Amino acid sequence: MDKVRVIEIKKSIYADNNARAELLRGELKEKGVFLLNLMSSPGSGKTTLLRSVIPMLQKNKLRVGVMEADIDSDVDARAVAETGAKSIQLHTGGMCHLDAEMTRQGLDALRTDDIDLAVLENVGNLVCPAEFDTGASVSAMILSVPEGDDKPLKYPLMFTVCDVFLINKIDVMPYFDFDMEKCRRNILMRNPNAVIIPICARTGEGVDVFAKWLQDRVAAWKKA
Amino acid sequence: MDKVRVIEIKKSIYADNNARAELLRGELKEKGVFLLNLMSSPGSGKTTLLRSVIPMLQKNKLRVGVMEADIDSDVDARAVAETGAKSIQLHTGGMCHLDAEMTRQGLDALRTDDIDLAVLENVGNLVCPAEFDTGASVSAMILSVPEGDDKPLKYPLMFTVCDVFLINKIDVMPYFDFDMEKCRRNILMRNPNAVIIPICARTGEGVDVFAKWLQDRVAAWKKA
Repeated sequence: MDKVRVIEIKKSIYADNNARAELLRGELKEKGVFLLNLMSSPGSGKTTLLRSVIPMLQKNKLRVGVMEADIDSDVDARAVAETGAKSIQLHTGGMCHLDAEMTRQGLDALRTDDIDLAVLENVGNLVCPAEFDTGASVSAMILSVPEGDDKPLKYPLMFTVCDVFLINKIDVMPYFDFDMEKCRRNILMRNPNAVIIPICARTGEGVDVFAKWLQDRVAAWKKA
Repeated sequence: MDKVRVIEIKKSIYADNNARAELLRGELKEKGVFLLNLMSSPGSGKTTLLRSVIPMLQKNKLRVGVMEADIDSDVDARAVAETGAKSIQLHTGGMCHLDAEMTRQGLDALRTDDIDLAVLENVGNLVCPAEFDTGASVSAMILSVPEGDDKPLKYPLMFTVCDVFLINKIDVMPYFDFDMEKCRRNILMRNPNAVIIPICARTGEGVDVFAKWLQDRVAAWKKA
């Protein structure tokens, strides 16, 4: 099998997925459920961020539900459930990403009738999740300081498709060779409209800025 | 297109790839070229490790060539070339992994007639690269301390298919909630034969242990 043939198969998956994602997005709009797709490398701090930001959102009367996607284990769903948010674990059966149909299955299992904001914590991976529209209202990614400021150069699509970029683990910046300004420039080169928020999910630093940004996006989306 | 159909396509890719990988492994054995497949998350330190270990290998008369795979940019190939090792950059055209055919194309471009050890630095990704046999003699993965000790629970296949595991960035252990013994247990649960070597690629700590392990494997393979 040559490479061209593989690419053709992938293209047909994408076209089909895009149509399903648009359909799901429309249905969620009708139900008043805002969907956030959260992506990053393994271990960048997706679950820690959720544990930090959910109480802030709950204080502002936002009802949050979380779908934790992983190939195996349920450690993340259990960790998020401690916030009081509804939380389920999705096992992807070895798949490296979530597509719109898998997201729909997750939302069905989560049940969204008592939720304003549904969060999909995608599989830790900077490549494949960027290729599949999940039907989300916005997409966020975390880049953590230990990963390096050069990641936008190497994973162009991920940095193009997201709306907001959280630079996490800024508390350990003194111990790493990470240049925040260079990182900003690299992200903006891929995505001139990028919103970039430095945070420390563990201590909560900057997480309030993200909470505010997200709440504003949800409010604007409800009015639209 | 339903999920089952996607899985069938993937299976046919795998079967085909396995045959190509076996063929490539046989050809490399005949030529006396040992192939190391190096995998990790984005930013775990693959390139930094290579810059640290290659001079140690060169000192022991091993002629090293490196293929740096990325979706975009050539920063890694330029960084590795500074060691004096032959180095080329492979662009994967958006692909999330290397398969045996792509590896063969890389080896053809690298030219292996003056090389004992060829290193394939795979795309930074803990999911897809584990699914494709590249034809390598051994596979290594780096898990860095900031990623967390729970990664073997979440990415089972990667921790099953590799021969050696380098726990990198041990210099920042005091600043992270990382339990080395728990990490060892999690890896050994996936892979009872795992060789686990704590290192700091940046300072060189422990890298000599990996260099020795690799040289011993090359020597044993040459005799076999």
